[in-house]
Amino acid sequence: MTAAVLCIGTELTRGELQNSNATWLAESLTRIGLEVTALDCVDDDRERIEAALRRLAGSSRVLVCTGGLGPTTDDMTTECAARVAGVGLERDAASLQHIEALMSRFGRKMAPSNAKQADFPVGARILPNPRGTAPGFCVRLLGASAYFMPGVPAEMKAMFETSIASDLAVLVSDSRHQIVLRTFGLPESEVNDRLAGVEASFGVVIGYRASLPEIEVKVLAKAASTSEAEACARRAADEVRSRLGDHVYGEGFGSLPESVGALLASKGLTLAIAESCTGGLAAELVTRLPGASRYFLGSVVAYANQAKTQLLGVAAELIAQHGAVSEPVARAMAEGARQRLGADFGLAFTGIAGPDGGTPEKPVGLVHWAVASPNGTEHRERVFIGDRQSIRRRATLAGFDLIRRSL
Amino acid sequence: MTAAVLCIGTELTRGELQNSNATWLAESLTRIGLEVTALDCVDDDRERIEAALRRLAGSSRVLVCTGGLGPTTDDMTTECAARVAGVGLERDAASLQHIEALMSRFGRKMAPSNAKQADFPVGARILPNPRGTAPGFCVRLLGASAYFMPGVPAEMKAMFETSIASDLAVLVSDSRHQIVLRTFGLPESEVNDRLAGVEASFGVVIGYRASLPEIEVKVLAKAASTSEAEACARRAADEVRSRLGDHVYGEGFGSLPESVGALLASKGLTLAIAESCTGGLAAELVTRLPGASRYFLGSVVAYANQAKTQLLGVAAELIAQHGAVSEPVARAMAEGARQRLGADFGLAFTGIAGPDGGTPEKPVGLVHWAVASPNGTEHRERVFIGDRQSIRRRATLAGFDLIRRSL
Repeated sequence: MTAAVLCIGTELTRGELQNSNATWLAESLTRIGLEVTALDCVDDDRERIEAALRRLAGSSRVLVCTGGLGPTTDDMTTECAARVAGVGLERDAASLQHIEALMSRFGRKMAPSNAKQADFPVGARILPNPRGTAPGFCVRLLGASAYFMPGVPAEMKAMFETSIASDLAVLVSDSRHQIVLRTFGLPESEVNDRLAGVEASFGVVIGYRASLPEIEVKVLAKAASTSEAEACARRAADEVRSRLGDHVYGEGFGSLPESVGALLASKGLTLAIAESCTGGLAAELVTRLPGASRYFLGSVVAYANQAKTQLLGVAAELIAQHGAVSEPVARAMAEGARQRLGADFGLAFTGIAGPDGGTPEKPVGLVHWAVASPNGTEHRERVFIGDRQSIRRRATLAGFDLIRRSL
Repeated sequence: MTAAVLCIGTELTRGELQNSNATWLAESLTRIGLEVTALDCVDDDRERIEAALRRLAGSSRVLVCTGGLGPTTDDMTTECAARVAGVGLERDAASLQHIEALMSRFGRKMAPSNAKQADFPVGARILPNPRGTAPGFCVRLLGASAYFMPGVPAEMKAMFETSIASDLAVLVSDSRHQIVLRTFGLPESEVNDRLAGVEASFGVVIGYRASLPEIEVKVLAKAASTSEAEACARRAADEVRSRLGDHVYGEGFGSLPESVGALLASKGLTLAIAESCTGGLAAELVTRLPGASRYFLGSVVAYANQAKTQLLGVAAELIAQHGAVSEPVARAMAEGARQRLGADFGLAFTGIAGPDGGTPEKPVGLVHWAVASPNGTEHRERVFIGDRQSIRRRATLAGFDLIRRSL
């Protein structure tokens, strides 16, 4: 069964925006079992949008579109879909109310241009938007089931997962089951080498997705029934686990900080952080998750040395003697955060994220991190490669991995 | 003059690879002055490749294709191009030699499948590959000049810059100039409504890109000369500025935290942050930028109330009386951060990011923020919409906007 993706927006055809939606949708549709034959972008031009809709709806069973559902004059996807479907537009009272309610919660009156977001082709099924104002819709276009979603990635993904994925899975006849194993601490090439032969021995397809420094290993099994597919995927996943050892830290889509947070919460333990080079990223990754307050007490982002001394009690002489980026300072920061915030675990980072500030002895990428706990303080150091943001990210996750291992 | 991009490869339509070539080409073609109207991907299917070539060559003056020039059986782009051009293939002796020489440098013999890479449509102009074995070619397809390049990004980019960019620049007669204005504090619909009529009055094209809660307004002018285009874009941008007032905070591609950071640094002022609901996000956005240490001293992520008291000196009675999410606590946090870290500005956030923890009086999304400075402390509050991450992001940027305004 074939599917096509159409992304609408001049910001895409001008190359101003990396089209991550297209790749994400292609991967999701492929995983469901559809054969994606086209992944097209068109600019905000009425005639060209309609031509693309006609062409793709005429050649695919499923058409998934993103973009052009906003309130501005260059948002014209809904009108184009209605014209290709050969129907008019009608305003949906419930959607209008939803938009109005959202706007008024935001302390704003609804502008006429917002009302347009409640217009849909006659006969369309409306797809709720859990994350924003513009609902999506599903409509029959020529021979295709056509789905229209907003272009904002978070809204698009939520809508696809909530309202579209299960719709499409019904269309595909064979049963599939996928298990995602999450790994940390091995390079992609080594993960790949260690898993040589698993595909053939277990009759599964293995995919990799590096969200560096984490690597997801996706084990996909197809079979005549769901239970067979599940059993086959499970057997292969067990083999993957045994080959990768304790580098596998979880299953599913929870990141390493999420997994560490769940562990802490389940044991009734608390965490405090002290960050220099990571600049708040560690705290941000923890607090991004709902419920972080069950185990997270706080973080001191001690960027200036004076902040390390004043807020974490790191002795000024220690910094003067060893430098801010050093093992003794990392240890003192972890212990200071633990004590001052009264936490079970203190996690600290100090390093040189670059691009400036490196020296031959302490190059850009050097990070010291430490975990203080009732059992004492553990320290690690490494020179991470990559740009500023990669170094910060790799260091942060290495810190969470150290907590995971000491739990 | 219109252009289209076609990327060929099943790895793309399956979403196994982020299609960075498409974005890079779209941007390069746009910069040259071509209007890119389609950015399509097709899988390795002879019939579909030919259909895409016919369609895009029939509707654009320029067609740029990547992928499918390799030695394997699923590389069939050259054959498809020849069929659409209505000509046969012929082997090019010079290219064959080049491939053979490269192979022997790597100590390998030329396989028959490699020889295929020296075949081109009759009449094609061969484009040398400075970085790999497969040459590209240029051929007339229907009404279009069609360029074919390998899919390996480094090879593609080198070939485009060496052999194609200058070819295309000759085709474009008009000049373009774009000004990007950055706005904060107005919803997209209101920005759009306020700018009604500017396109027609000034002869420009206006585009919007919401990177919520920021909105970029792009003003594009075309004219016979560069200076005319610049002047026209400037006139229109001035009008946009006057209609949007102080919601415009800058030009170009720097985000609000970047712009506030540059302002602070230029005035020799320093910043300290105290965060509760934003959980480190404010510090993370500041320290993501190199050079943040010039003005950023640190942040206290005071998630637990005890951290607010201990690290920021917020009186426990104040929290008991008003609750942690309240104006007095936001003010005390901002003042505490400013004092404890010895900064010129203290910025604080306290709120309910959800999804849990809301009450009728203090709903999810309610955030209080405050800026303490030598001129006193300013406070704002609002109920932000969206999910946890959107609320945190919107609140953080509103905080930076308050600093901007007090600067």
